[in-house]
Amino acid sequence: MFGTRCLLRALRFCSSAPSPRPKPSAKLSVRDALGAQSTNGERVKVQGWIRSVRSQKEVLFLHINDGSSLESLQVVADSSFDSRELAFGSSVEVQGQLVKSPSKKQNVELKAEKIEIVGNCDAKAFPFKYKERPPLEYLRQYPHLRCRTNALGSILRIRSEATAAIHSFFKDSGFVHIHTPIITSNDCEGAGELFQVEPSSKIKVPEENFFNVPAFLTVSGQLHLEVMSGAFTQVFTFGPTFRAENSQSRRHLAEFYMVEAEISFVESLQDLMQVMEGLFKTATMMVLSSCPEDVELCHKFIAPGQKDRLEHMLKNNFLIISYTEAVEILKQASRNFTFTPEWGVDLQTEHEKYLVKHCGNIPVFVINYPLALKPFYMRDNEDGPQHTVAAVDLLVPGVGELFGGSLREERYHFLEQRLARSGLTEAYQWYLDLRRFGSVPHGGFGMGFERYLQCILGIDNIKDVIPFPRFTHSCVL
Amino acid sequence: MFGTRCLLRALRFCSSAPSPRPKPSAKLSVRDALGAQSTNGERVKVQGWIRSVRSQKEVLFLHINDGSSLESLQVVADSSFDSRELAFGSSVEVQGQLVKSPSKKQNVELKAEKIEIVGNCDAKAFPFKYKERPPLEYLRQYPHLRCRTNALGSILRIRSEATAAIHSFFKDSGFVHIHTPIITSNDCEGAGELFQVEPSSKIKVPEENFFNVPAFLTVSGQLHLEVMSGAFTQVFTFGPTFRAENSQSRRHLAEFYMVEAEISFVESLQDLMQVMEGLFKTATMMVLSSCPEDVELCHKFIAPGQKDRLEHMLKNNFLIISYTEAVEILKQASRNFTFTPEWGVDLQTEHEKYLVKHCGNIPVFVINYPLALKPFYMRDNEDGPQHTVAAVDLLVPGVGELFGGSLREERYHFLEQRLARSGLTEAYQWYLDLRRFGSVPHGGFGMGFERYLQCILGIDNIKDVIPFPRFTHSCVL
Repeated sequence: MFGTRCLLRALRFCSSAPSPRPKPSAKLSVRDALGAQSTNGERVKVQGWIRSVRSQKEVLFLHINDGSSLESLQVVADSSFDSRELAFGSSVEVQGQLVKSPSKKQNVELKAEKIEIVGNCDAKAFPFKYKERPPLEYLRQYPHLRCRTNALGSILRIRSEATAAIHSFFKDSGFVHIHTPIITSNDCEGAGELFQVEPSSKIKVPEENFFNVPAFLTVSGQLHLEVMSGAFTQVFTFGPTFRAENSQSRRHLAEFYMVEAEISFVESLQDLMQVMEGLFKTATMMVLSSCPEDVELCHKFIAPGQKDRLEHMLKNNFLIISYTEAVEILKQASRNFTFTPEWGVDLQTEHEKYLVKHCGNIPVFVINYPLALKPFYMRDNEDGPQHTVAAVDLLVPGVGELFGGSLREERYHFLEQRLARSGLTEAYQWYLDLRRFGSVPHGGFGMGFERYLQCILGIDNIKDVIPFPRFTHSCVL
Repeated sequence: MFGTRCLLRALRFCSSAPSPRPKPSAKLSVRDALGAQSTNGERVKVQGWIRSVRSQKEVLFLHINDGSSLESLQVVADSSFDSRELAFGSSVEVQGQLVKSPSKKQNVELKAEKIEIVGNCDAKAFPFKYKERPPLEYLRQYPHLRCRTNALGSILRIRSEATAAIHSFFKDSGFVHIHTPIITSNDCEGAGELFQVEPSSKIKVPEENFFNVPAFLTVSGQLHLEVMSGAFTQVFTFGPTFRAENSQSRRHLAEFYMVEAEISFVESLQDLMQVMEGLFKTATMMVLSSCPEDVELCHKFIAPGQKDRLEHMLKNNFLIISYTEAVEILKQASRNFTFTPEWGVDLQTEHEKYLVKHCGNIPVFVINYPLALKPFYMRDNEDGPQHTVAAVDLLVPGVGELFGGSLREERYHFLEQRLARSGLTEAYQWYLDLRRFGSVPHGGFGMGFERYLQCILGIDNIKDVIPFPRFTHSCVL
């Protein structure tokens, strides 16, 4: 039963087990090499791509980057190494001694004993050249190569750190992470802008849906999160959402990421806003401390002045105004708007921008929107004559709306009436059920992740903060 | 410019700022209440759902659960509280003193001073009853309520912890997290089983694709990760993937989660297998230590014996056999298979199961598969007469294939020829580019996340380890 032969071949590669092969030079990432505390001339191996070559009379300087950090490792070789093959963009493996650098620019450098070209770079065809710093628009033409530049390298490392920071904020606050579904049969929200999903025509079963019902790509995990908040009290999701919006704007994508949270036993917008502000500030502080060089690149070269603007956001308490107050402020504005501000009408981007400026470029929560503007699930404030619901948007400098949230209607009969008015009663029996069985006051919010990155980094176009942007007329790779 | 009015309304809710309202009883989650070290009779408030009510002559015992842990908090009240309204499933808020419990069953209990019903539970209609432990198949009928049971509560908390453990494994190992796209124009992989994406019929632009090209839901983030491994060396993604497979099996879903990693400068399958085994073991150990009670519920009530089977997997080194050896083992098997094992033909589930048993129920890597069975990107082993590629699958007890991976063909001319043979040269120019500009030996793998959960918990049906399962004929909620 138990094959000896296959047992004999079992690898002994548990972390504690010694390797049977003779120990090669320790392999180090560029980041670890740069951060080495003691440089007693140990022999190491570093692999990466050449970012620069500088040949002097008797020495050759290379800079090697492997994406583990913005900074490259300086390699010093004697001029006997053939520098012709050592071209920008080529991949190399360098073995040698890690030593203290005589220059002030870096702590350590690698004294090369062996340099091996792993893969050449066809320099003529390579769209990036040594020492050039092409604009982000240019890089967008090369979605498969742009991550090799300093700019996109930094942005995507920050994106990775921000993802970790957001997960960690929620975990530390006791939230349970939920994978809400991507394919859904709920079709009422964002009605006009849904993507529909069908098996590809090659296998389409005629006259029948794969799922028996029409299926769409999710526009929000909120309703599914509400199911879960009825069991776990505090839940969050962080995944892709979709809009079939015919927009080429610098703030919209067809596929983007949302961070959504839902919290039971929340009785006021204040409680919700506290979590929203906490998420923004905590995640941002974590990003600033985990990859300061990458953030500095953005704040120095891509969006000068952004460092101060971000500090201003972080050190001030976010403000709160009501929708009604917002409309008053807009009406009293000295400037003209393309869309005349009026109670009962949605705020436009131009209005949002004006409000943020009016508030001294501090993020501002706008609360209590007209009931008629908002979906069935938002909690009725039972006020009048201007009838509102307990909704909240957070407007931030540069981006406009970053968060949207609300208290949810937890009262069975209120919800039942709202559903009936929208003709949705039958489709949302399950949603009513959540109010039949131990209903609790609750609320939640969503934050657009790409807009968050735009906001903290000062990146103007949303296509530059996501690895592979999808939008009207474009789905490259 | 700077509205005083709106400044005055700024909330002072920074974590350090004192709250302006009189301090209420400290709100505690059930988990925190149960874990309280000192019980000096402080006044606390706990909110949750009633899991049991037991009325004795002079005292009333309630168990309150809020999903923060499997264990509920015992509430002790005097019998003056009306127990009729305190029904299974209702939501309540209890204020009182946290005291040491006289019983050995728990450390602390809550001596109630005030119990408030937040939301009643319509007991007749509620599909779950007090003290019943319905089977998972029964719970599946109630996707919006099943998370309120002990079983699904535990499984979904474990899923959340496993998600965090996987992120943390990769972060600690220096991998950059990448959101690979969900909508893609690559259509070659898994050709027959793709979902196609179109704007919903309500807004379909006639005679034109939204993206100008046919667009599909991703079956794997691998090719996009390869782009990124050319910049960051070590990258991973953890997101939804899709198959329009007409399958009702207990191991398949139309929407499921994959953990995928891609590593540059990897020269052997050994290096890859080390990461795969490390991921499996490290993540599992983290899950076992972060939610032992939840895991114990599964190992005790859902899959008796699974604790030992899992320990057996964790304490042994995973085994390695070649595909060729696997076929030999199958040919020599004493039992008959529905599909006769033969070199050059794919392994079937029955074969995988036999191999794992043959290996003593230790996970086993099967390596070096026939070139003709595998996609164009797998690295040619240049062997013969039985021509293979450097592919690897990990087979595990109960589940079969858990991981799939390979070295990728990094040699331009080899890849060019393989693409030409498949008629894909034009579509994959960008993929060839990765080999023109500083190509490196690299490899990667994917792990089915739901199968991973099935494997460690012993859950028989994949539909029970995902919050909202999607499969043929079913897309509920």
